Amino acid sequence: VAERAFDGVITSPLCGRPPKPRTRGQTMLLDKGLGLSETGDLLEMAADYVDFIKFTFGTAALYPTELLRAKIALIRSYGVDVYPGGTFLEIALTQGALPSYLDRALALGFTCIEVSDGTIDIGREERRTAISQALALGFTVITEVGKKDPTEPFHLAEASDMINADLAAGASKVIVEARESGKGVGLFDPQGNLKADDLATLIHAVTDPDVLMWEAPLKSQQEDLILRLGSGVNLGNIPPAEVLALEALRCGFRGDTLRAALARQGGN
Amino acid sequence: VAERAFDGVITSPLCGRPPKPRTRGQTMLLDKGLGLSETGDLLEMAADYVDFIKFTFGTAALYPTELLRAKIALIRSYGVDVYPGGTFLEIALTQGALPSYLDRALALGFTCIEVSDGTIDIGREERRTAISQALALGFTVITEVGKKDPTEPFHLAEASDMINADLAAGASKVIVEARESGKGVGLFDPQGNLKADDLATLIHAVTDPDVLMWEAPLKSQQEDLILRLGSGVNLGNIPPAEVLALEALRCGFRGDTLRAALARQGGN
Amino acid sequence: VAERAFDGVITSPLCGRPPKPRTRGQTMLLDKGLGLSETGDLLEMAADYVDFIKFTFGTAALYPTELLRAKIALIRSYGVDVYPGGTFLEIALTQGALPSYLDRALALGFTCIEVSDGTIDIGREERRTAISQALALGFTVITEVGKKDPTEPFHLAEASDMINADLAAGASKVIVEARESGKGVGLFDPQGNLKADDLATLIHAVTDPDVLMWEAPLKSQQEDLILRLGSGVNLGNIPPAEVLALEALRCGFRGDTLRAALARQGGN
Repeated sequence: VAERAFDGVITSPLCGRPPKPRTRGQTMLLDKGLGLSETGDLLEMAADYVDFIKFTFGTAALYPTELLRAKIALIRSYGVDVYPGGTFLEIALTQGALPSYLDRALALGFTCIEVSDGTIDIGREERRTAISQALALGFTVITEVGKKDPTEPFHLAEASDMINADLAAGASKVIVEARESGKGVGLFDPQGNLKADDLATLIHAVTDPDVLMWEAPLKSQQEDLILRLGSGVNLGNIPPAEVLALEALRCGFRGDTLRAALARQGGN
Repeated sequence: VAERAFDGVITSPLCGRPPKPRTRGQTMLLDKGLGLSETGDLLEMAADYVDFIKFTFGTAALYPTELLRAKIALIRSYGVDVYPGGTFLEIALTQGALPSYLDRALALGFTCIEVSDGTIDIGREERRTAISQALALGFTVITEVGKKDPTEPFHLAEASDMINADLAAGASKVIVEARESGKGVGLFDPQGNLKADDLATLIHAVTDPDVLMWEAPLKSQQEDLILRLGSGVNLGNIPPAEVLALEALRCGFRGDTLRAALARQGGN
Repeated sequence: VAERAFDGVITSPLCGRPPKPRTRGQTMLLDKGLGLSETGDLLEMAADYVDFIKFTFGTAALYPTELLRAKIALIRSYGVDVYPGGTFLEIALTQGALPSYLDRALALGFTCIEVSDGTIDIGREERRTAISQALALGFTVITEVGKKDPTEPFHLAEASDMINADLAAGASKVIVEARESGKGVGLFDPQGNLKADDLATLIHAVTDPDVLMWEAPLKSQQEDLILRLGSGVNLGNIPPAEVLALEALRCGFRGDTLRAALARQGGN
């Protein structure tokens, strides 16, 4: 962790979380195609706050090969994990191309694989096999629960079962789907408000809540989850331009969580 | 077209469109002032997906001259056409400065000119003359139909007439106005939903639908138009940060259009 | 002021404002963590249009020290003032760390200090003292009125008193709070519409309206304030990517204010 500009002068109002590499308090950025100098800018400033960068949906297929290699290498040089979106693996499955997909991803330098069924349906066995094959190649595996289609309801019992099966199969983290919009999907109602009972049900389903990562693209969602679950909550689908703003929320350096931190201290 | 990172492994679920230079499946980006390194980042990654960059409204007037020249040269070096917003030409017309406007635009390196009447009223003859003068200097001419003022209704019959007159006068493409917001303007209702009947009417008015370009700043609009008109639809006013996301929609590399592609294949 | 690309060809439809350094027509950008090359890109293009850059809330605490120094130096080299968000000073006050906060800010190169009470309550005397201490170190002082919590009403009489007290204490400008969202805060209703009567009341409270700066993150708000108060209005919390778009509004180079400018000329 680099020296910070106000070290020794100002203390974070909310307690921090462990430094990287960490298993709680992780942040995953949703990358829709940051350029190389933009990626360098971001990491130079905020690498300590970023655990994963996801090249969302199938955007990884759209890069010139050499540029993709260079970007992945840059991200890894800052100690950040990087993976293609789950939709891309779903496409590979529909094309019967999982092994060559995993081999290519490995050759390009990706460190993680996401296994999801947000768009297509995958059988339990097929899902477990995909996890195993990725693990066998040395990838970290992240899985996702929840459908992208807003007309498909989110079944809590099914999601809980799947989470536990994925963890048993070797997944490091399970992401709860909220898409890029955060509205009318997974735990969020059409206005983007958190369904607190559903959140509690999912947390109750797992032995260790730190294995869950919540997609929370909107600031109100990030704030809500931090206030309910603490600064050490795992948050995903964060827009890259919001990385310092999220970190400020986590640390109480922003009005919304600062107010809560002061109230807890019985302060001001 | 450069080699892509997953060539030979994954196939696009939706059929592609022709490589550049192309007359269908074009993408026009709305540039509100990308810096020089940001522009380089964008083009290095996505030049194959971009046909036009528009320096929106009168922003071209606000650049230091040498920076504007350098940015235009950079864009052209990637085989992308570049032009100032139509509002800027409208200002030139109100100031009786059309010839010097065109000369300056040419000297700066712009390759296209947009002729519109989104804010001011222009007579038929004046519009035709503007098109001719731009053509005479060697510019590609793009025209636009539709008013920016949300209180002015969009007259389909008038728009159809104007589209055909513009094409007869030598315009390469006609853009249908949706502004940066995409709401309550042209073919979109105040919530940004497409008026499908109006779309059909406009398409019916032209011999070749490929001459139309639809401003579609919102993802839901891009998706809707791709699903109705195919991957080869011409789309404009795309935010630069969305260029890979749009390309993913066009190729079926994103949940929304992937689902439709699979349904058509009778697949998964 | 650098030469502009269409100088001598097109005239701004709305009258301009004085060149920098200026006391009216100022623009303050809300910076949530622009990287170094992005900042360079922005300033190379638009430094003449930017008077202040605010590192919003407590983001200044999150930078690696050397990167923060380099970014501040870059901003200053373009003649732009730079300061940490008011929330950060509020945190310093709750931690009894105001003197060391000001010293560190000075050492890092910040040129301004914002004094606010958006999240915590500060007594009149404490506020005056903070202003004095910052002035004594050579900072320009900007204060802010208005609470960030949407459940706390905006008291016009209190705000007017505070504005005048701040100016008497040596503040150069007083900002009227609207947050990053611009909705349900200060002068804006929950839809982000301006409460015109409240605006008039605040303007009436001060001898010189140029000392007020209006946070106006949304385009509709910028447009409304420019049409009511003129191109020379001071506007803050502008997203950096909108800087040319705002300048186009100020100059009448965009449909919305162009229409108004032409109507006033009795033109077109």
